[in-house]
Amino acid sequence: MEFSSVKGFRDFYPEDMVVRNLIADAWRRVSLRNGFVEYEGPMLEYLDLFRVKSGDEIVSQLFSLTDRGGRELAIRPEQTPTLARMVNARINALPRPIKWFSIPWVCRAENPQRGRGREFFQWNVDVIGSDAALADAECIFTLADLLAELGLAPSEAQVFLSSRSLITAALSAVGVETSRHAALLPILDKRDKVPAEAFEEMCAKEGLAAGQIASISAFQDAATLEEAAARLGPSDTVAAECAKLAEVMGILDRMGAGDYCRLDLHVVRGLAYYTGVVYEAFDTDRSLRALAGGGRYDNLLETLGGPTLGATGFGMGDIVLGILLAERGKLPSTAESCDCYVIDAAESLFDAALGVVAELRRAGLRTNLSYKRQNLGKQLKAAARSGAAVAVIVGEELTEAGEVTIKTLATGDQRRVRRADLVAELKR
Amino acid sequence: MEFSSVKGFRDFYPEDMVVRNLIADAWRRVSLRNGFVEYEGPMLEYLDLFRVKSGDEIVSQLFSLTDRGGRELAIRPEQTPTLARMVNARINALPRPIKWFSIPWVCRAENPQRGRGREFFQWNVDVIGSDAALADAECIFTLADLLAELGLAPSEAQVFLSSRSLITAALSAVGVETSRHAALLPILDKRDKVPAEAFEEMCAKEGLAAGQIASISAFQDAATLEEAAARLGPSDTVAAECAKLAEVMGILDRMGAGDYCRLDLHVVRGLAYYTGVVYEAFDTDRSLRALAGGGRYDNLLETLGGPTLGATGFGMGDIVLGILLAERGKLPSTAESCDCYVIDAAESLFDAALGVVAELRRAGLRTNLSYKRQNLGKQLKAAARSGAAVAVIVGEELTEAGEVTIKTLATGDQRRVRRADLVAELKR
Repeated sequence: MEFSSVKGFRDFYPEDMVVRNLIADAWRRVSLRNGFVEYEGPMLEYLDLFRVKSGDEIVSQLFSLTDRGGRELAIRPEQTPTLARMVNARINALPRPIKWFSIPWVCRAENPQRGRGREFFQWNVDVIGSDAALADAECIFTLADLLAELGLAPSEAQVFLSSRSLITAALSAVGVETSRHAALLPILDKRDKVPAEAFEEMCAKEGLAAGQIASISAFQDAATLEEAAARLGPSDTVAAECAKLAEVMGILDRMGAGDYCRLDLHVVRGLAYYTGVVYEAFDTDRSLRALAGGGRYDNLLETLGGPTLGATGFGMGDIVLGILLAERGKLPSTAESCDCYVIDAAESLFDAALGVVAELRRAGLRTNLSYKRQNLGKQLKAAARSGAAVAVIVGEELTEAGEVTIKTLATGDQRRVRRADLVAELKR
Repeated sequence: MEFSSVKGFRDFYPEDMVVRNLIADAWRRVSLRNGFVEYEGPMLEYLDLFRVKSGDEIVSQLFSLTDRGGRELAIRPEQTPTLARMVNARINALPRPIKWFSIPWVCRAENPQRGRGREFFQWNVDVIGSDAALADAECIFTLADLLAELGLAPSEAQVFLSSRSLITAALSAVGVETSRHAALLPILDKRDKVPAEAFEEMCAKEGLAAGQIASISAFQDAATLEEAAARLGPSDTVAAECAKLAEVMGILDRMGAGDYCRLDLHVVRGLAYYTGVVYEAFDTDRSLRALAGGGRYDNLLETLGGPTLGATGFGMGDIVLGILLAERGKLPSTAESCDCYVIDAAESLFDAALGVVAELRRAGLRTNLSYKRQNLGKQLKAAARSGAAVAVIVGEELTEAGEVTIKTLATGDQRRVRRADLVAELKR
């Protein structure tokens, strides 16, 4: 009987795990230095939690099951509903602003494609309890800090900034009634992904006149906020929303992250729940899917039974990021599985070798030894295969002079050191 | 609309996450220094993988679901079947012995009890491809090393060693046919968990005579291997199995882990698949469930479509361990969420403060600031609430003398340092 893994689900062999840990460690390190603390919710939630946040369509996109009590559960397709549930449950006890990050494993019942599996890790960074532009800027700064931490230069990856509230203000400015905004936003989000005719046809279907389409497109194509506003004609709301986005971009400049950030009013985001600044990170060539996406979502806590509370944050998956890092040569070429390999030159020295192994491990050195009592040559070959940098040979020199031999496996150089000095010598 | 978490599933608020990370970090650190490398399988597997390993009963103990393609999937209740599947898939490419560890999140559809939820993290440590006693000893040494690493002394937690093959040899020695061993092992495993009469009744039901029950019990109660063998009468198989277990215990002694290890032939383990040495770790008072359990399982790879290959390892959950660490006072009392809190003494200095924040973060210092531009006193209060050790005050001294003020929040002491020296001063 032979078994395979489920399509779209990854096996992490040790060499894959090195990449996964490199990414997760960078996420954690960058989150912490930016003043975020870690939390995590459970793998399973009540299906209704996701239904209330995202509507009935979400149900077909997630793995759901019914437990023996007849309760409908789902494997989380994202962490944000859990975040809102957890914050709501302790809303009066948690000091604000709440700066939380998490690295959940999430599952989506989609067809696997390049850059998209049926499971992935998603770094979540959120600030809850602040309406300040600084809160949005903190999240975006953290995202840019991660790109830099992993060695991705601004010429390789960028954050593209926009504002959902500015785009709705623009729709109003060209005469689109508020009641039609919700239907139009997903269409504007698709503008870069479909041919121009298809885009115009979708807009027309929602009642947009050709002039309105042209105005909104011109607004989105503007290179600066001033230009974007000018293309719409005078509007206090547009001006106010431009000022808010400009404030966020100004803070990012003053924090030294301006190189990673660029205005792009084509960014709309697909989900309905965004209320302010939105952004997406991409490789600069745009050859891959989005690296990350997020924005302000001030109404979610209320939707899930809590108070109205400012909230902003983003998610970044591990799959597209891993592809980009590999393409750009930012991943380590090999993974050494151990530091030292301890060898007994004769079976009578095996007990002494065991003692050396235990001592090196207690000192934190990754240490292996052969499970077979075999001759020196065979053990040296096993040492080389293990990837160890050095072999520690426990030979007759131990009984004769209280010494052991350190052999550097790459060069073949060897030297004798006092047994008592071994750990200190290896740690140098 | 209010939502709760699913019963038996944990929310990890930041203070819970500190404990979870403390445990996971220790697991990872100890695994690596003992020469194991990390792998992980997917959250979902085909249901059949678990059915083939553990029989149809397992199906009622796990969360299963049917995907849109009609495939029966299950959330993993344990990692070992995945390990066997992954090793089998690359059996000819992987250098042996395979020393792998993993920290999977697993789910079981059980009723939550003290020390047992419906999800937990389980540290898995396995050696595949070796029949040597040293391979078993390596796993047990790693387990003892973890206990020591977390500050648990041998007087607080112990590994209790036994041997499945020795116990079956003992059953043969008292005249129980091999065909009845499989049914009797789970009964012997329950001996310590049920009243004596109930135990004897279960044995009798399986055809054991009173004398056989007494002999096996006397064997299990022995304090040493010599005594255990003596209580059964002469048997070459028993003698050989005693020698194998003695070899494992001898290696552990010579590696300095003997204090953590104790013979206990009451340990049988419930699962059918063990073939040699078995063990369980407990708090020494035995007031909690098992901390860990494992042993040799030489037939599993073959059962799952691979070759016959020696395999040995253990699993340790995070829940019981977390309870023991809390009871024994081994957990940190508080979690500081940041190192520094940057304050602008006047709004005109806000830009300069932003530059300080960015620089401290780049230097790896966990840094926060107020999202509201408010007076010095309010910002100092926010700094104290944040748990930061120091506040960095950016005041007029910056424009006047190129200096900033470091205030130690616990004592109120403050000193001025040159802006250019700030990172170096804080890192001291």
